[in-house]
Amino acid sequence: MTNLRLPGPTPVPDDVVEAMSRPMIDHRGVAFKEMLLRMTDNLKRAFATDNSVYLLSSSGTGSMEAAVVNTLSRWDRVLAVSIGNFGDRFSRIAKTYGADVVDLKFDEGEAAPPEAVREALAADPSITAVLVTHNETSTGITNDLEAIAKVVKGEFDKLLLVDAISSLGSIRLLTDEWGLDVVASASQKGWACPPGVAMISFSERAWAAYERSDLPKFYFDLGEADRYLKLGQNPWTPAVSVFYGMDHALMKMLDKGDMRETWEFHARIAQYTRDALTGLGLRLVAKDQKHASNTVTAAWLPEGVTDAALLGMLRDEYDIIAAEGRGTLAGKVFRVGHMGHVTTEDIDAVTAALREALPKLGFAPAAVG
Amino acid sequence: MTNLRLPGPTPVPDDVVEAMSRPMIDHRGVAFKEMLLRMTDNLKRAFATDNSVYLLSSSGTGSMEAAVVNTLSRWDRVLAVSIGNFGDRFSRIAKTYGADVVDLKFDEGEAAPPEAVREALAADPSITAVLVTHNETSTGITNDLEAIAKVVKGEFDKLLLVDAISSLGSIRLLTDEWGLDVVASASQKGWACPPGVAMISFSERAWAAYERSDLPKFYFDLGEADRYLKLGQNPWTPAVSVFYGMDHALMKMLDKGDMRETWEFHARIAQYTRDALTGLGLRLVAKDQKHASNTVTAAWLPEGVTDAALLGMLRDEYDIIAAEGRGTLAGKVFRVGHMGHVTTEDIDAVTAALREALPKLGFAPAAVG
Repeated sequence: MTNLRLPGPTPVPDDVVEAMSRPMIDHRGVAFKEMLLRMTDNLKRAFATDNSVYLLSSSGTGSMEAAVVNTLSRWDRVLAVSIGNFGDRFSRIAKTYGADVVDLKFDEGEAAPPEAVREALAADPSITAVLVTHNETSTGITNDLEAIAKVVKGEFDKLLLVDAISSLGSIRLLTDEWGLDVVASASQKGWACPPGVAMISFSERAWAAYERSDLPKFYFDLGEADRYLKLGQNPWTPAVSVFYGMDHALMKMLDKGDMRETWEFHARIAQYTRDALTGLGLRLVAKDQKHASNTVTAAWLPEGVTDAALLGMLRDEYDIIAAEGRGTLAGKVFRVGHMGHVTTEDIDAVTAALREALPKLGFAPAAVG
Repeated sequence: MTNLRLPGPTPVPDDVVEAMSRPMIDHRGVAFKEMLLRMTDNLKRAFATDNSVYLLSSSGTGSMEAAVVNTLSRWDRVLAVSIGNFGDRFSRIAKTYGADVVDLKFDEGEAAPPEAVREALAADPSITAVLVTHNETSTGITNDLEAIAKVVKGEFDKLLLVDAISSLGSIRLLTDEWGLDVVASASQKGWACPPGVAMISFSERAWAAYERSDLPKFYFDLGEADRYLKLGQNPWTPAVSVFYGMDHALMKMLDKGDMRETWEFHARIAQYTRDALTGLGLRLVAKDQKHASNTVTAAWLPEGVTDAALLGMLRDEYDIIAAEGRGTLAGKVFRVGHMGHVTTEDIDAVTAALREALPKLGFAPAAVG
C-alpha cells in the first residue's frame, strides 16, 4: 500500500471505504435525514460549537468561498492575514467578490504575530472583518488562532472568518470558546475521508452579516443550506458516498468522548516527524518550532537536490508520496503530511527512505539521523 | 436491494462501487493526471464534442452556476426557457448574478415549442444568451433541444447554455452538431455514479463570452479549470473517489463504441414504463407522449391518493423508492426514474407494487393493467 504522506488527501481507512460502499439512497428521504442530522450534531461537537454547521458538496476552497460570499458585501474593508499560499487564496476570493482587502502578509515559515493583527486593526477602524488561516499547509505553520481571536473578537469585535481546512479534526480548535464566527473545513484532511465534502460553521454574528451581505451566491448560499437543513436535506444533491464516509469517520472520532485524544496524538506524531527530519540534517521551514504544524511538516530541499528528483525517487523506489512546494515555495521545499490517518510506522518509512535517498542525490544526512 | 427509482441518484453498479474503493492518490500526481485526461477524452465522446470539457467537484447545480458565471455579465439580457422546476432554477441563478432575465415559461407537462423561442428572440434583439433545460425531471418532459438549437444558433446566433444534467448519458444529445455552447451534466444521473462530480463543456463562443464576463467567480471559474487541466490537474482538490467511479463508468459506457445503444435502451425502457403506468389507468404529466422523458416518468396522483401514502407504502412494503413532485407539482404527482442503471425487472417491480398498492389507497387500477 502506497504511503500517502500529503497534506490531504490522506489515506482512507478500510472501514471508511466500506461505509462509502453502501447503496445510494434518496437524498430527500428519511434515511438521509437521519444521517444528516447525526453528522451535523457530531460536527458541532468536533467544531466545539453551538453555531449552525452545514455540509457542502465541494472541496475546501468551496467552503472558503462560502465564508466570503455569505458574510461580506461589496467594498467591505477586510483584513486578510496571510502566512502563505492558502492565506493568499482566502484574500483572492474576497477580492474576486469585490471586498476592499487589506493584505497583512508574513514571511515564509512565520506565524502571524497577534500584535501585528492588533496594529493593523487599530490603524484602520473601517475594517469590518478578518480572514485568517489556522494551519498553513504550504509552509507547515499553525497560527496561534486563540491569541489572534482574542485580539479580533475580544479587543476589536470584528467578524472573524477562519480557514481551518487542514487543522480541524487534528489540531485543537474551540469555535465557541475562541469566538470564531465562521470556520471552514474539508473531508480529506483531519477527517481521513476522501475529498468532496466541506463543512462550515456559522455564528449568530455571521447571520447578521449574511442579512446585510449583497454578494451574489447560489450554490454556496448558506441561507438555502439552513432552510433545507430544517427539512433534513441539502438544497442540492449531496455527494452521498462521501457523506457516508464522513458520517462513519465522525462517529469513530467522537466515540473517544471528545477530540482531545486525537489532538494529542497529532501533536506527538508531528514532533516525531520534526525530530526525524532535523535528525537527518534537514532544515524545517518553520522558523520557530512552537509554530510548526501538527498536520504537515515542510523542510527546505538541501542544496542541489530538486523536488522532482527527491519526490520521484521516494515515489518510484519507496512507494511514498510526499508533497512538493506551493506558491512561492515551489521548487524550494518538500512536505510530509501527518494529518488524519497516520502511524509512527508511516513516518519511520519516510525517514528510512530519506536516509537512503538523500545521499544518492548528493546530500549526506546527519550521522545522528 | 432497494429498488431506487429516482430521477437521480440512480443505483450504482457493483463494479463502479469497487472502482470507487481504490486507495487515495495524489491529485497533483501522475496517476491522477492520466485518469483526468482519459476522463476528459471520454467525456468529449459522450458529449459528442471537440469543445473543452471540465470536471467540477459539485452537484449539477454547481455546473449550472458555472455555465452562468463564466459566460454572462451584469445586465446581460437573457432568455430563460422554463418548462418546470429546474428551468426556474437556471433562471434564478442568472437573476442572482445580476442578469436581466426574460422568462419564457410553459405549462406543466409541455415541451417548449421552438416557434415560441423564435418569437421571443425576434421580439427582443437585445437578448444575448438563451438558457434551456434539455430534460425537465420535475415534469418528465424532454425539450426538442435540436429544434430549439436550430432557432437559437441557426437563426439568431445567440449563446446557448444547456442544462443537460438529467439527459446526458441516457438521452441523445449532440453538442457540436447542434451547436450547443455550454452543456452541463452530473455524475449521479445518466452515468450511474454517486453524486459529487459535475461535467461541463465550453465552446469557443463561450470562451469569447468568458473574456467579456464581469460576473465574480472563483470556485467555478472555468479559466482556472482550463489552466490546471493543461497540467493534468483540477484547480481545487477533486472528489477523487467519485472521479474513480466516473472514470470506470465512462470507459464501460464507451466500450460499446458510441452512445447510440445506451440512448436506444433508455428510449425502450421509458416507453415500457409509460405503457405500464398508463396500463394501470394512471395519467402521465406529459401531455404529448412524444415529449415524454426517457429518463423519468411523472404521473398525476389519482384523486384521493396522497404522495405520502403512496410513496410511503412503496417504500415500506415493497422497498421501492419513487420520487415526489417538486415545485408547483409537489403533492400532485409522483415520479419513477429510469435513467442510468435500470432493468425491465426494476420497472416490472414498480408496476406490480402499484397494482397492489393503489387499490389499498382507494384507486382501482385499470383491468388491462
